[in-house]
Amino acid sequence: MSKLTDVPKRILIGRALRSDRLGETLLPKRIALPVFASDPLSSVAYAPGEVLLVLSIAGVSAYHFSPWIAVAVVVLMFTVVASYRQNVHAYPSGGGDYEVATTNLGPRAGLTVASALLVDYVLTVAVSIASGIENLGSAIPFVVEHKTACAVAVIVLLTLMNLRGVRESGKLFAIPTYVFVSGVFIMIVWGAFRGLVLGDTMRAPTAQFHIEAEHQGLAGFALVFLLLRAFSSGCAALTGVEAISNGVPAFRKPKSRNAATTLAMMGLLAVTMFCGIIVLALVTDVRMAENPATDLLRNGTPVGSGYVQNPVITQVAEAVFGKGSFLFIVLAAATALVLFLAANTAYNGFPVLGSILAQDRYLPRQLHTRGDRLAFSNGIVLLAGAATFLVWIYGADSTRLIQLYIVGVFVSFTLSQTGMVRHWNRHLATETDPAKRRHMIRSRAINAFGAFFTGLVLVVVLATKFTHGAWVALLGMMIFYATMTAIRRHYDRVAAEIAAPEGPSDDSVRPSRVHSVLLISKIHRPTLRALAYAKLMRSDTLEALTVNVDPAETKALREEWERRGIDVPLKVLDSPYREVTRPVIEYVKSLRRESPRDAVSVIIPEYVVGHWYEHLLHNQSALRLKGRLLFTPGVMVTSVPYQLQSSEAAKQRARKRQEWSAPGSVRRGPATERAKEHSGRE
Amino acid sequence: MSKLTDVPKRILIGRALRSDRLGETLLPKRIALPVFASDPLSSVAYAPGEVLLVLSIAGVSAYHFSPWIAVAVVVLMFTVVASYRQNVHAYPSGGGDYEVATTNLGPRAGLTVASALLVDYVLTVAVSIASGIENLGSAIPFVVEHKTACAVAVIVLLTLMNLRGVRESGKLFAIPTYVFVSGVFIMIVWGAFRGLVLGDTMRAPTAQFHIEAEHQGLAGFALVFLLLRAFSSGCAALTGVEAISNGVPAFRKPKSRNAATTLAMMGLLAVTMFCGIIVLALVTDVRMAENPATDLLRNGTPVGSGYVQNPVITQVAEAVFGKGSFLFIVLAAATALVLFLAANTAYNGFPVLGSILAQDRYLPRQLHTRGDRLAFSNGIVLLAGAATFLVWIYGADSTRLIQLYIVGVFVSFTLSQTGMVRHWNRHLATETDPAKRRHMIRSRAINAFGAFFTGLVLVVVLATKFTHGAWVALLGMMIFYATMTAIRRHYDRVAAEIAAPEGPSDDSVRPSRVHSVLLISKIHRPTLRALAYAKLMRSDTLEALTVNVDPAETKALREEWERRGIDVPLKVLDSPYREVTRPVIEYVKSLRRESPRDAVSVIIPEYVVGHWYEHLLHNQSALRLKGRLLFTPGVMVTSVPYQLQSSEAAKQRARKRQEWSAPGSVRRGPATERAKEHSGRE
Repeated sequence: MSKLTDVPKRILIGRALRSDRLGETLLPKRIALPVFASDPLSSVAYAPGEVLLVLSIAGVSAYHFSPWIAVAVVVLMFTVVASYRQNVHAYPSGGGDYEVATTNLGPRAGLTVASALLVDYVLTVAVSIASGIENLGSAIPFVVEHKTACAVAVIVLLTLMNLRGVRESGKLFAIPTYVFVSGVFIMIVWGAFRGLVLGDTMRAPTAQFHIEAEHQGLAGFALVFLLLRAFSSGCAALTGVEAISNGVPAFRKPKSRNAATTLAMMGLLAVTMFCGIIVLALVTDVRMAENPATDLLRNGTPVGSGYVQNPVITQVAEAVFGKGSFLFIVLAAATALVLFLAANTAYNGFPVLGSILAQDRYLPRQLHTRGDRLAFSNGIVLLAGAATFLVWIYGADSTRLIQLYIVGVFVSFTLSQTGMVRHWNRHLATETDPAKRRHMIRSRAINAFGAFFTGLVLVVVLATKFTHGAWVALLGMMIFYATMTAIRRHYDRVAAEIAAPEGPSDDSVRPSRVHSVLLISKIHRPTLRALAYAKLMRSDTLEALTVNVDPAETKALREEWERRGIDVPLKVLDSPYREVTRPVIEYVKSLRRESPRDAVSVIIPEYVVGHWYEHLLHNQSALRLKGRLLFTPGVMVTSVPYQLQSSEAAKQRARKRQEWSAPGSVRRGPATERAKEHSGRE
Repeated sequence: MSKLTDVPKRILIGRALRSDRLGETLLPKRIALPVFASDPLSSVAYAPGEVLLVLSIAGVSAYHFSPWIAVAVVVLMFTVVASYRQNVHAYPSGGGDYEVATTNLGPRAGLTVASALLVDYVLTVAVSIASGIENLGSAIPFVVEHKTACAVAVIVLLTLMNLRGVRESGKLFAIPTYVFVSGVFIMIVWGAFRGLVLGDTMRAPTAQFHIEAEHQGLAGFALVFLLLRAFSSGCAALTGVEAISNGVPAFRKPKSRNAATTLAMMGLLAVTMFCGIIVLALVTDVRMAENPATDLLRNGTPVGSGYVQNPVITQVAEAVFGKGSFLFIVLAAATALVLFLAANTAYNGFPVLGSILAQDRYLPRQLHTRGDRLAFSNGIVLLAGAATFLVWIYGADSTRLIQLYIVGVFVSFTLSQTGMVRHWNRHLATETDPAKRRHMIRSRAINAFGAFFTGLVLVVVLATKFTHGAWVALLGMMIFYATMTAIRRHYDRVAAEIAAPEGPSDDSVRPSRVHSVLLISKIHRPTLRALAYAKLMRSDTLEALTVNVDPAETKALREEWERRGIDVPLKVLDSPYREVTRPVIEYVKSLRRESPRDAVSVIIPEYVVGHWYEHLLHNQSALRLKGRLLFTPGVMVTSVPYQLQSSEAAKQRARKRQEWSAPGSVRRGPATERAKEHSGRE
């Protein structure tokens, strides 16, 4: 590989290594499933329990409604999956719900969806980790005894991993996800076999408990309300379904079809596991209470506040596999791991959404640039901070956190599906091919039903959960909405301010001459280099400028200037208070006042050092001066750097930082792919 | 005042307001005394008590040694004052002990003195505030019950005041100091009158207590050691005496004479108060114990840990004036206030010493520049942090803090006086005028005695206090010494690296041509301005450069470029990973590789915004790019700023910041005065 021919290639396509990786990052279905579906699949670890928990308010007898609720959840799941299969085909660019809502319903709807999704990411982290800790706790009691601390520790760990830029790897997701799915299926099959064939009586550890119904004999509207609330809780199983629609560019070709297939597989797996666990819970007599301390009775007396209510999935596993058995431990560990991975998807999803929002100027522009480490770091820290706050406030109690969770999801479902209906309407207006029209009408029907159903669920969720915590999620959405609107307004204002006028010579302050001023404190290599460069620039006038803070030093400088015969005039500014910045600024301003049509070029020799503590020892006054000069109109500021030996260290660090890959880069797909799709659409 | 003639004047002498203030900042003796002497004068609030406390170890009978110890302290005080009067005359530049030691004993001795003084500043804050809190506590019990918290609160308050830049005003110091001195003198006179003329029996509140001697009947070496320890504690009265010798430039003319007179006045006041309080304490039977909880007996039983031992000065005031009387309250308040002012002197002394050390490159250079707010802030926060740490560790107990205090003072006394002896020796070697010689020999004798006596005290202090805490002070000194040596070594290394070679054309990499690259993302006013400036600079070649992160945008840019007929070629770099920095850096490097003898000038249009949050929304990639480019050899980086409307706000803030006056500016005297003295000596 000759160095010379290599250069243009590297300029064109970036570092060779990166470019080679392009193919590698495209995901086959078997890897895409765990990458995108760990969130919805893992939610079967807590959703069934939440259903039983709510029903328990009306006593154990209400548990018999749970299969019906499961059926409702299944219908909803199929509806949502069917709807999103339409999205995936219609919008293969990965913009997801935000793009669909913005394109079809306008920017306000889009921003509402974006706010909902951002809140959702925070809650995905909080709920998944809280639930993961509870699952882990059923195997390791220590963990559940220090629930909040452990949950925060996991958040910190995930945050550090993502800050350091651990690459989201397909394999990392695949193994625990498949272990978890297999484990649940083995449990269902083995449970069915033991129950139906062997005729074993499997008893959950809470089977002998009794539940003190908070509202005995609930009927009529109150019962319906309770069932709706239970259904709302069960809907937690649907969170994260939309993830695939954001990740289409990361799929192998044919992208949309592969994504749609993966979506269907995911839906099927999720509902099977959800129903299987519900049925097993009923068979093994699992008892869950909303307030176990008072409502759960052991031999007639409440279990008290010391009691830890294990998740349904581990109770069922205990009944089917036996407590402490190998499969029980494996399933508990895999469940916890999948839940932590689900939390990690939020860390990956955030930059993807952030980048799209930044492109539309709702978020700081630098989020748009992949690999902008600083910007991603801020986002990750924000996400982690908000999740930690919630975990702390709610004591890492997944049941209480789930109350907040589902609002955002269904806001984006509903708006997205409504947007899709509009999308088909628009296309139907122009489409003439009958086959295509038929297809579109079918899609529109699916999306319309999806919009109606998810909208209904949203109303139910809001009605049943508002006071239980949904208001917190709504508040969070409003905060995001307001912030993003303000950012957009700022960008728009600036864009208007700096918009280039038409016509080539409109700018009235076009300067006619440049007066260059070279700042000097001593004569050394950096100064000489800056002097050489300043001369090369051939400005209209050039003078060297020094500030007299120490008469002896100034005298020495002047003498050396003469002795070396430097053919540039040296001007000395007096500074009675030993300041540097002010006299220079005043001088530059006076030059501008003397000839307002001229520009002033201030040239500053700088040394570049390699360590942060060296920065404390150097360049501060140069930096401050540069900062002040930027506020002075008609000035340009030129740094002529001189690299000290120690700067090599900083260069190495910067290079290493550049190797960093931002979270979410796998699910986002290669940039070129996205760019192509994007420009294709426009 | 015409605007036009005003300009050169303002350039020459800075802002008119500042220049007018020059005279104002020179201090008459009556103001200089409280400014510089609040530290030594206030130490009579705790030094007498410390003497009694140590003596109590051998029982109350040992109190009879206290007048002898007072005499020793008085002799020492006169010695030190006499010695420093020589310093003030010989070194009127305000360099103080550091300058004397460096000039006469070499840089290591100077640095040792500087380290000792820095430790001293920290301890001045800690001890004075702890003692002030104790004095305040004798009037307001709440304060002493929350000693540490109150002490930290006062430190925080002083720190904030100094960070905000409250000007050290003579009047601020004068009133409480004179109230305090008058109060103590009224107490002494009134006490003498009551005792000698009225024949009253004045009883301190602890008069009826008994002291359980820890070592009854101490004799021989042990007794001598105890007396020396008591003397060491009494030497706390001498801390801060050297302050005047650092502040000579702030005095009105004749500076040295006025400073010497003030020094003498200060010494006289301090010893009178010190002796008066010791005598009154003996007369009123004040009882102080090192461990009051166990060693102080009331009716035969220890007073226990709940007992608060009030300072001697307030006990005496209570005996003379009566508890709760007006004069008692006034004196307690004035004492506390003077002690807080004494702590504040450290905040003012630090920048003065820091500036001198920075001039000699032992501390970051920017400390040398007056008004460098950031640098001073760091110093102030460091000082406050260290003092808070000590106050916290030692529970704001002045008795325990004083054990650390006196080492640093006597290190600098001894080295300074030794240096003075050398100074006179050097001058005597060349001086021929017999009158002057006689004068010098006399001065040398005084300084020699001073060096001997303070050296002896240093040995005593080290011997008697090392295990009691003096080791902490020594450790602090070593840390400062090591840090400053490292900083100096860094500066020396850099200076060697960048030293300009002799001969005008030694630099082999002198570039021959400049290739200018203007970075463009969109066409707007900032870009057009940068383009106009770039053209003015007439470099050898000029091209516009854009990075293709979004094909659609790039296409639009290219079209607008054509449409506007801009006569500069536009180059587009591809960036498959949507990065901006890397492709630009690679391109610049490739230009350098193609023609290594040419320089590359990268011109970056920037917008300048006014609020920190706007910075989050703009310029990040430009900033990062600039940072990376500085590491690339042969490049100069030019910012062409475009001031947005909001930048006006930042400009206002910057202007306001510049009005800020650094702590210590009063005692440092005007810069021009110092510069004159300085260049006069060289």
